[in-house]
Amino acid sequence: MNKNLRGAAALLLSLAIFGGCCNGSALLKTKVPAMPAGQQTMVGYADDPIDTVRVAIVGLGDRGSWAVKRYTQVPWTRTVAVCDAEADRAEASAKWLVDHGYPAPAVYSGPEAYKELCLRDDIDLVYVCTDWAHHVPVALCAMEHGKHVAVEVPSANSLKECWDLVNTSERTRRHCVILENCCYDFFEMMSLQLAQQGALGEVLHAEGSYHHNLDFYWNQYWEDWRLQFNATHRGDLYPTHGLGPVAQALDINRGDRFTSLVAMDTKSVNGKEILRTWRGVENPEFKNGDLVCTLLRTEKEKTVLIEHDVMTPRPYNRMYQLVGTKGYAAKYPVEQLTLGQDVLDALGVDYSITDAHASLPADVIQQMYAKVQIPILNDELRAKAKEVGGHGGMDWIMDYRLAYCLHYGLPVDMDVYDLASWCCLSELGTISMEHGCRAVEVPDFTRGHWQERPGFSYAFAR
Amino acid sequence: MNKNLRGAAALLLSLAIFGGCCNGSALLKTKVPAMPAGQQTMVGYADDPIDTVRVAIVGLGDRGSWAVKRYTQVPWTRTVAVCDAEADRAEASAKWLVDHGYPAPAVYSGPEAYKELCLRDDIDLVYVCTDWAHHVPVALCAMEHGKHVAVEVPSANSLKECWDLVNTSERTRRHCVILENCCYDFFEMMSLQLAQQGALGEVLHAEGSYHHNLDFYWNQYWEDWRLQFNATHRGDLYPTHGLGPVAQALDINRGDRFTSLVAMDTKSVNGKEILRTWRGVENPEFKNGDLVCTLLRTEKEKTVLIEHDVMTPRPYNRMYQLVGTKGYAAKYPVEQLTLGQDVLDALGVDYSITDAHASLPADVIQQMYAKVQIPILNDELRAKAKEVGGHGGMDWIMDYRLAYCLHYGLPVDMDVYDLASWCCLSELGTISMEHGCRAVEVPDFTRGHWQERPGFSYAFAR
Repeated sequence: MNKNLRGAAALLLSLAIFGGCCNGSALLKTKVPAMPAGQQTMVGYADDPIDTVRVAIVGLGDRGSWAVKRYTQVPWTRTVAVCDAEADRAEASAKWLVDHGYPAPAVYSGPEAYKELCLRDDIDLVYVCTDWAHHVPVALCAMEHGKHVAVEVPSANSLKECWDLVNTSERTRRHCVILENCCYDFFEMMSLQLAQQGALGEVLHAEGSYHHNLDFYWNQYWEDWRLQFNATHRGDLYPTHGLGPVAQALDINRGDRFTSLVAMDTKSVNGKEILRTWRGVENPEFKNGDLVCTLLRTEKEKTVLIEHDVMTPRPYNRMYQLVGTKGYAAKYPVEQLTLGQDVLDALGVDYSITDAHASLPADVIQQMYAKVQIPILNDELRAKAKEVGGHGGMDWIMDYRLAYCLHYGLPVDMDVYDLASWCCLSELGTISMEHGCRAVEVPDFTRGHWQERPGFSYAFAR
Repeated sequence: MNKNLRGAAALLLSLAIFGGCCNGSALLKTKVPAMPAGQQTMVGYADDPIDTVRVAIVGLGDRGSWAVKRYTQVPWTRTVAVCDAEADRAEASAKWLVDHGYPAPAVYSGPEAYKELCLRDDIDLVYVCTDWAHHVPVALCAMEHGKHVAVEVPSANSLKECWDLVNTSERTRRHCVILENCCYDFFEMMSLQLAQQGALGEVLHAEGSYHHNLDFYWNQYWEDWRLQFNATHRGDLYPTHGLGPVAQALDINRGDRFTSLVAMDTKSVNGKEILRTWRGVENPEFKNGDLVCTLLRTEKEKTVLIEHDVMTPRPYNRMYQLVGTKGYAAKYPVEQLTLGQDVLDALGVDYSITDAHASLPADVIQQMYAKVQIPILNDELRAKAKEVGGHGGMDWIMDYRLAYCLHYGLPVDMDVYDLASWCCLSELGTISMEHGCRAVEVPDFTRGHWQERPGFSYAFAR
C-alpha cells in the first residue's frame, strides 16, 4: 500500500495541477484547453498531393537505421536527409544509401542537429525514430517549419506533449502521424475488417498489451534511455502496440471515444534488480512497477484492457483480442476466431461449424486470411511487404500507407488525435495510480469532432 | 457514461450505507464489523476427527445430483440425506443410491425442507448445491444446527452474506468451506507447486476469469434463477473459478491479503437480447454488463485481474495465469510455462532451453506433469480422480480433500475467509462501478489473522 499512501499524500498537489477534481465527483479530470480562436480541427484533414515525398529520417539507432533501408522500397518517396545525435550513425546510414546506389542524403549530426535540418526547404516529411525524450521536440520543430511529421511510439510521453502536438498540428496544418506498426499486422487487419463488416456483431470489449521481456535489450539503448525512463516514470510507458489496433476496431475518435480509465500496477522487483545487478546501484529506487494494467471505458459503454510488462520472463504477447456480441478474435498465444456459420458461408470459407463454443481450427483461420479482403492490400503489395519485411511486413505496409496518403493528398490513417488518445494512457494511468487507482477522465483531444466521422476507414484515391 | 452518471447520483446514498468514504481519501470503504466479544478466529481451526463423515446433500439439480453419485466414491463418507425443493429430484437421487446398492438416504423436499433436515442429529456435513439465492440460508441453518457446511460457488452473493458466514462459522466453530473445484485442476495444482517451490520467483501478478458462453445453458436452471440473477445484479457474479486458484498461489489470507479493487463493465447487449428473444420481454432492463473486469491489489503490492463473460460467443477460458519474477504459467487457450534451466534440471526434466523468451514446448509441459509432485495426490488418487471424473477429476479431488481433512480432524484447504475474500469481489465491484469505477477497500475478513500463517499449505495427518 506504500504507493497508494504516497498517492494520497500527493492528492492536494495534484488537484492544484490538474484542477477539475471535486469531492463529490468520482472522476478525476485533467485540464482540457480550449481551441485557440481561428485554429481548426485536423479531423479528416487532407493536404495537397505530393508527387515525390521528400523524407528526412531523424534518429538512426536500431529503428531509424532500418527505416532508412526500408524507405528505399517505399514508392513515391526519396530520403533526402538523415540525422542523429551521433555522427557515426548519421554517416553510416548515408553511406549505406550511397553504397546501394541511392542519392547521397544530407547528413546532420549532434544533439540539436534536427533544428538545422528543419530549416531546409526540400523536406516534406520528418520521420522521427529518436529516443522517447526527443520524439516531441523534433516533431514540434518539424511542424513549425512546415513539415509533416511521423513519430515512432510512444509518440508523446505526457499529457502536455499530447496537447502540444495536437495544437501545433492544428495551427500549422501539418499531419502528425503516430507510427503504430501493429495496426498493419495481418491478423489485426483481418480482424478489423471482420469487425467493420459486422462479423463480430458489436465489439464490446477489447484487449491489448506489450508483454516483452527486455532483458536482452536493456543494454542496447543510447545512453540507457529506456531503462532510465522506466526507472523515473510510473505507468504503462508503451501502450500503443496494444491500444492502437483495438482503438481502430472500436472506431475511437470516429463515433466513439475513450471517456475514462483506471490503472493499477505491481511493485517493482525486477526493475530494481536490473539497476542493482547490471548498473551497480545500491538500494535502487525504481518508479515503474513490473506490470501495469489499465482499464478504459468508452462513450458507448465499451471497455478496453491494456497491459504493460517488460520486466518478467514470459513469452512475447500483445494480447490483441476483440470480444463481440456475435464473434471473437484473439491473436496470442495462438490465433482464435469464433464466428457464425453465416459469416463463413458469405466469405466462401469451406467449413461447417460443429462446436459453437470453440475457436475455428488453425487451418480454417489460414483460409480466412485468403478470404477476408483487406482494402489497402492486393497480392502484389502483400508480396512486397513480406519481401521487405520489418516485423513480418507490417513496418513496410505502414510506410507505404503513409506515403500513399501524402502522395494522393488524403487524410492519414492514424492522425494526431489517434496519437494523443493512445499515448495519453501513460500519464493518465500515472495520475490514477498516484490517487489510489481513481478513475480519470480521458480528454477529448478532438474537442467534439469525434462525432463527425461514422467509423474507422482507410482513405483511397479516386 | 450513463451508468457512471447513475453511479455518481448514487454516491450520497451509498456513503450513508457504507460509511467510510471521505472526501480526501481515494478508497471507498465498507463497514468492517468488530468481532463480537468471546468469538474466536477460524484461521487454522481443526475440529475433532470424524470416522465416517455423514453427508447431507441439499439442492439436487445438475450439480447436486452429480455430487450424490460422486460421493459414493469418496472415502470416509456416507450420504445419509438428500434434499431438494422439488420432490421428484430428491426421490430420483435417493432411488439412484438404492438402485446402485447404497443405503437409502433420508429424503426431504419442499422449498424450506432444508430446515427440517438440519434438525437431524446424524449429519456431519451439509453439502449445498442449490441455486445461488439459497446457498447462504442453507449454510447458516446448517451451522446453527452444529453441522459443518460446504457451499457451491459463488458461496455468498453479497458482503452481508460473506460476513454472516464468517461470523456464524466463528461463533458455531463449524467449518464453512467454499467448493471451488478449479483449485484442484491439474495445471493449477502444478503451477501452485511451482510457485511454492520458488520456480516462478515472486508471483507479482495473476489472472483468472470465467468466460463461458451460457447460451445453451440458460434454459436449464430451476425457475430461470441464473438469468434472472444476471438481469437484476450488476457485477462479476461468478468470480471464484478465476480467483480461487490464483489466490492460493498468492498466499491470500496467509501472509498477504487483498486490499483494494476496482471494476469496470460493458453495457448489456446480449443479456437484453436473451430476455427479448427467449423470454419475450419488451424493452428489457438488464442490470449486468455483458463483460466485467476487476483489478485487485494486495498488501504486498501484487495485482490480480479477474474477468466475467457469460454472454458473448467465445471459447471457454479461465485465463489462469501466474506472472512471476523468474517464471510464468498460463493455461488458456494453450498451456504455457516459462521457467529457468535450473528449475528443469532440479526436476529432472530432459530439456535444454534454447529460447528464454518462449514457452516450454507442449511435450515438455507434459513431462512436467509427471515431474512436479502434488502433495495431495499419489498415482492411485490420480487414477481414481480420472476414473470418477467430474470436470476431468477435479471435483472428486476437491471432495476427497474435504473428506480427508474432516476424517483426520485437520484445517480445511479453503476456509470461510477464503470463501469471503473470493466471493466479496462481486458486490465490491458493484460498489466500484456504481461510483464511477472508484477503488474500494477489500475488507479483511480474517480481522488481522491473515498475518499468522506463512503461506498456503495443505494439511496432512501425521
